[in-house]
Amino acid sequence: MSINEMAFQVKEASIRLAATGTELKNKALTNIARLLMERKDEIIKANNEDLQRSKEENLAGPLLKRLKFDDAKIADVIDGINSLVNMEDPVGKTLLSTELDDGLELYKVTCPIGVVGIIFESRPDALVQISTLCLKSGNGVLLKGGSEARQTNRILVEIIAAATDEVGIPSNWIKLLETRSDVNEMLKMDEYIDLIIPRGSNDFVRYIMDNSRIPVMGHADGICHCYIDEDADVDMAVRIVVDSKTQYVAVCNATETLLVHRKVAPRVLPEIKKALDSKNVELTGCDETQKIISVAPATEQDWKTEYLDYKLSIKIVGDLDEAVEHINTYGSGHTDSIITSSKEKAASFMSLVDSGNVFWNCSTRFSDGFRYGFGAEVGISTNKIHVRGPVGLDGLLIYKYKLIGNGHIVDDYANRAKSFKHNKMSKQFPL
Amino acid sequence: MSINEMAFQVKEASIRLAATGTELKNKALTNIARLLMERKDEIIKANNEDLQRSKEENLAGPLLKRLKFDDAKIADVIDGINSLVNMEDPVGKTLLSTELDDGLELYKVTCPIGVVGIIFESRPDALVQISTLCLKSGNGVLLKGGSEARQTNRILVEIIAAATDEVGIPSNWIKLLETRSDVNEMLKMDEYIDLIIPRGSNDFVRYIMDNSRIPVMGHADGICHCYIDEDADVDMAVRIVVDSKTQYVAVCNATETLLVHRKVAPRVLPEIKKALDSKNVELTGCDETQKIISVAPATEQDWKTEYLDYKLSIKIVGDLDEAVEHINTYGSGHTDSIITSSKEKAASFMSLVDSGNVFWNCSTRFSDGFRYGFGAEVGISTNKIHVRGPVGLDGLLIYKYKLIGNGHIVDDYANRAKSFKHNKMSKQFPL
Repeated sequence: MSINEMAFQVKEASIRLAATGTELKNKALTNIARLLMERKDEIIKANNEDLQRSKEENLAGPLLKRLKFDDAKIADVIDGINSLVNMEDPVGKTLLSTELDDGLELYKVTCPIGVVGIIFESRPDALVQISTLCLKSGNGVLLKGGSEARQTNRILVEIIAAATDEVGIPSNWIKLLETRSDVNEMLKMDEYIDLIIPRGSNDFVRYIMDNSRIPVMGHADGICHCYIDEDADVDMAVRIVVDSKTQYVAVCNATETLLVHRKVAPRVLPEIKKALDSKNVELTGCDETQKIISVAPATEQDWKTEYLDYKLSIKIVGDLDEAVEHINTYGSGHTDSIITSSKEKAASFMSLVDSGNVFWNCSTRFSDGFRYGFGAEVGISTNKIHVRGPVGLDGLLIYKYKLIGNGHIVDDYANRAKSFKHNKMSKQFPL
Repeated sequence: MSINEMAFQVKEASIRLAATGTELKNKALTNIARLLMERKDEIIKANNEDLQRSKEENLAGPLLKRLKFDDAKIADVIDGINSLVNMEDPVGKTLLSTELDDGLELYKVTCPIGVVGIIFESRPDALVQISTLCLKSGNGVLLKGGSEARQTNRILVEIIAAATDEVGIPSNWIKLLETRSDVNEMLKMDEYIDLIIPRGSNDFVRYIMDNSRIPVMGHADGICHCYIDEDADVDMAVRIVVDSKTQYVAVCNATETLLVHRKVAPRVLPEIKKALDSKNVELTGCDETQKIISVAPATEQDWKTEYLDYKLSIKIVGDLDEAVEHINTYGSGHTDSIITSSKEKAASFMSLVDSGNVFWNCSTRFSDGFRYGFGAEVGISTNKIHVRGPVGLDGLLIYKYKLIGNGHIVDDYANRAKSFKHNKMSKQFPL
């Protein structure tokens, strides 16, 4: 079957899936969880084949770790599915209701986006999380996984499709693409795919954005900052910077640049250096920083770099405005934190920093769907339209305006025979 | 000044504008209204020069009509500004608040998108409407107007900027681009511009979408449908079809294709033909239609065409499912209406038709920001993410996650020294 035919089938199924009720969707989710458990041994066998082949092909250690899908990870995704069952159905919620005139009622009602195309790295748990989020939100999904995970992906999609077919979810709502050339085909299918969610390297996400007319939800970089203000508690500042930098370095919400107010720098920087030295963090700093602690010189390039490693750049600033300007110039709109005891300065920072997540007196590492209480997430968005920050079900929804009349025509209003009332109601869509 | 410098200045101003309070924004809006009235004669003089030059350049009659900005139109835009003053400030609304743990509180708060690039046709009233919507929603704006209106655009932007400077709105929040080559420069500025709203021909909107990495909010086509179901009231059906087709033909929410259930076709089609003949509407129809009324044969191309004229294509369908499939295949996701006395069929149609606006027993022409009670609108979106349908202030907003802690670090939760509470609160962001 051609990719075009597959995408067409998913599109057709997605229309029916959009009109599928909560009970059936939850029944399907429960059945997926059951079947994953029942066929666990087959899944692990397929995953072992992928692991074996990937080792022979010299896949890097961290990637092998991500590829691995064992008992513990299967238990985790099943937990995730069960919590998704308990979440409220996001589809069909009335966001607004207005009586335009007697008998003419307008409703704004949430609905699925349609077909989501997901291109993901070799994490089988991501496949299950994302496709079950799509199911709960009523979206069809075209998945493109990494070739390293191909045996695991195949059996997972087979199990998910079988479990949903069994309870009567519209067939073909989920399809798996396998080859690299499939991605380029996918990018052209704006007729069938409504949103692409790429997960992977920054370069890859940019490539997708540059080569498709389909809207893309994804983050390009995670250049996050901590800013220590003049009136920060020094102990708190050290704790937060250490956590923001080192709690897990290979992720987008780790801090890459530390900004320090000139007045507090002589007190705080030696403490920071001591704490980060003990974690083997390499430091680079501006001229002023170099006068206070021993660090390598930072270049303009450092301010623009997402290290994703045990490395931190440090810059001393004259005031909050200079910190804000640095962040808005070099940051990536992801997550930035101010450490200060001043409520006014926190308010100003949180208002002026143009990022999806702005924090006061806590670690940038909190920027995460699970920690925010959103359950599973499809990713963290640095987009400025639709959704920002950690994205759960909300990023997979849009709305329709539904208008109910009784023969109403516009000409009566254009000719002033009638006039609009525009009364706000708080009424659920009645059909 | 280069366009790049202009865009940079708007970006800088937009950061400050995002943090500007309601009172000052409303004061600025009131001052714009005052100054437009005060300098009305200058505006009309500039507009007369544009009209004169455009006549000499043989601009088409309907375009001249749109270009004209007289006393009545100035009064209309001033009314619009006054109603905008009375609207609630959409910025700074808390959408969600969660206690993640003791002293660690998460808020989801609305904020402006940043800088909006608007490319608009030669309607001076659109310039005023859109820039005042941007001001109220706290967005900077780069405007590119048609060269036909250049004198009018210049004086309007000068007046708006003077009125806002006078009360202390950050300078440079609004800038006007003038040449056609400026558009192509604008499309490359994804560093400074967060959203482009093109208004103009479908081909033009597509060109913008294909040539920029910046998200585009706009509609491509408006291929709207009326579907007359078997149990429709015939009189009501005729009224609604005539209004949907002829109330104003040159707009995106006018109906282009009529679908009729086979059972009711022999009764309803002769009535429709009689009514539309009296309005000089040209009809094309499928084979079955041709057997009932005298119409030209419709081709596949007719189902895909936005006539924007006194022309309607007609197709007979076997049931509601066939109607839905036709609409989802050939429609443009804009506005579609079912005429039926069955609540169940209306519910099914409104759920299965994949359009931004789905109507029951009323005219497709109601799909409009003013009629929906949204006040002014920046356009009607057929996008499937961010905003759909008529777009008022909501399309110019996004949100930030604001997290307040007291030295909280992630490591405590990763090591299970602490655990998340995730208590829902209903608390406004306190800073």
